[in-house]
Amino acid sequence: MTAHLTVSKYEDGTDLAAIREIRQRLMVLAEQRMREFLAAQRSRWSHSDPRTTVPIDAVADLIHAGGKRIRPAFCLTGYLAAGGDPRDEAVVSIAVALELLHASALIHDDVMDASPRRRGQPTVHAKYGDEHDARGWQGESHRFGESIAILAGDLALIYSDQFVAGAPPAVARLWGELRSELVIGQYIDIAAAAQRTLDPELSRWIAVAKAGRYTIHRPLTIGATLAGRPELEPAFEAYGAAIGEAFQLRDDLLDAFGDTAATGKPVGLDLEQQKMTLLIALAMQRDPRVRELLSTGTSGARQLRELLIETEVRADIEAHIAALVEQGAQAVVDAPIAPAWRDELVEMAHRVAYRNA
Amino acid sequence: MTAHLTVSKYEDGTDLAAIREIRQRLMVLAEQRMREFLAAQRSRWSHSDPRTTVPIDAVADLIHAGGKRIRPAFCLTGYLAAGGDPRDEAVVSIAVALELLHASALIHDDVMDASPRRRGQPTVHAKYGDEHDARGWQGESHRFGESIAILAGDLALIYSDQFVAGAPPAVARLWGELRSELVIGQYIDIAAAAQRTLDPELSRWIAVAKAGRYTIHRPLTIGATLAGRPELEPAFEAYGAAIGEAFQLRDDLLDAFGDTAATGKPVGLDLEQQKMTLLIALAMQRDPRVRELLSTGTSGARQLRELLIETEVRADIEAHIAALVEQGAQAVVDAPIAPAWRDELVEMAHRVAYRNA
Repeated sequence: MTAHLTVSKYEDGTDLAAIREIRQRLMVLAEQRMREFLAAQRSRWSHSDPRTTVPIDAVADLIHAGGKRIRPAFCLTGYLAAGGDPRDEAVVSIAVALELLHASALIHDDVMDASPRRRGQPTVHAKYGDEHDARGWQGESHRFGESIAILAGDLALIYSDQFVAGAPPAVARLWGELRSELVIGQYIDIAAAAQRTLDPELSRWIAVAKAGRYTIHRPLTIGATLAGRPELEPAFEAYGAAIGEAFQLRDDLLDAFGDTAATGKPVGLDLEQQKMTLLIALAMQRDPRVRELLSTGTSGARQLRELLIETEVRADIEAHIAALVEQGAQAVVDAPIAPAWRDELVEMAHRVAYRNA
Repeated sequence: MTAHLTVSKYEDGTDLAAIREIRQRLMVLAEQRMREFLAAQRSRWSHSDPRTTVPIDAVADLIHAGGKRIRPAFCLTGYLAAGGDPRDEAVVSIAVALELLHASALIHDDVMDASPRRRGQPTVHAKYGDEHDARGWQGESHRFGESIAILAGDLALIYSDQFVAGAPPAVARLWGELRSELVIGQYIDIAAAAQRTLDPELSRWIAVAKAGRYTIHRPLTIGATLAGRPELEPAFEAYGAAIGEAFQLRDDLLDAFGDTAATGKPVGLDLEQQKMTLLIALAMQRDPRVRELLSTGTSGARQLRELLIETEVRADIEAHIAALVEQGAQAVVDAPIAPAWRDELVEMAHRVAYRNA
């Protein structure tokens, strides 16, 4: 950790605790607004016919199950760091939109990856597939479960969008970019896995698209743009690229070495499916033994995990993450934002890169 | 056909040919704008990486394969009938949004129904599943095909929305309604099929939600609202409910008795899957022999088709469609819109109810 932690007051009279409290108030508001919106939708549809609420419940269950709310946090941070008025609640709607969009992406991704669990709960398709089974309904239960998940994901996508209606054109444009990037990044991910493309550059591209842009750079820039300071984008883009890569590497490390109890999703899935994650791509570049083992096409998760330790690739990747965090910090150190927010962005880089879930 | 066909000129100097030409110009503009948008997205992504274009191509292929463009036509009709300025092209964007939303719904519905063909082409999931097979890629080919379809449907949904950004709040609100109704209507449809709910009222509810509201009432009302006349909604709602039911019954009849060469999709699928269509629901109400055959759970498409003719249920349904068309015409006959547009709405009711594809 760096020296800034010892700074208690900045020249402008703010301190880290104070600016975090301002953001926290907006985070709480976003959470409330999101839950109230879902409850209102449910109640409205349930009045018209109680059988209609399943897709809404599927979205609400995922929201209630928790999650890190990283995208709302970066959006609010970008907004406040750019000097946005904390009393103007337009940014809260955008924060909600980002989280609902993320819910949509998770629900659909889990279908594509056939993942059984998410946030410590069964995934939407798994839950409703099981219900279909248990009740002995007509048709294939996996198809039923996946249909509910497709519809719930669509609904979350539609809802997310309702929170952006009325946003300034510059924000709407960035929102459009972020969403297409998300879909196309996911496509490239799936295509690379199907084609077993062993291309570390492509894996890095996917990490930058999915984690860097979608999770960090775009939310920060949308916040700054809403505050009237789109010129902060280059700094946030550089920060997002570095911290996004660190985020993705941590994700891959958590899949390889993490703990299901903490992450709420199965561990070892990527290794088992021999997915060309950024971790594996870098590992293949760093050590020929990894390349060799993967080329056999028969390696299990345990074997790969052991090799990553033995070859010191795991330690190498940790060093690379540390360098990325440093690089991200450099990207914002000269940005024209209040010093307290600059330090908070550095802190957030650490939290993202060294999280355990 | 009614007497209005003989009217060549109305008191205000318009005639049917003239007003259709005005609408046709906007239809052509909408088609151009939609295709140009998709081409521009493709070219932009293809510059960044040629491998990224598959989800865009999947959407564009469906658009290029044709379709009836019913929703844009109703939207433009509602706008012009309400006196909207034909030179103001904001309505063109909304027409595009409706068609892209429909593309999204079709792509996702075809996954849920496991449909092999649409608009005379393989469905998205079928096409990319086959490609996966042919190339011997990694993983399950049906899962790959469905993943591409989920992403392509998401992309079309996102694109559709970009054409509504900047619309007046009243239009944005209706757009939100239309989209949630679409998703929830589809859910009820799937749930009723899985649970084999033999409930004619529910089948009618589904028809009103999916065909009445989504296809007719909401597009008309969105057009009228954009023209500044939201008070036309009750007339358009009554028209949509009647003509939507007729539309759905024709859809069901085309599935039962239509011709794949004309419809571009397989015939008999609903009967084969014993789907609780509106046709079947009404048939069960009208003749106990239909109920009996369905309760065995083993009837084939041919058997059901023959019974629908033998019991005269098919002829009954045709009479019911005629009554619905009359009812729809009554709903707009007193609406405060130009007489030429009133007659055109009656004509459109006929075209929708008596189409062969």
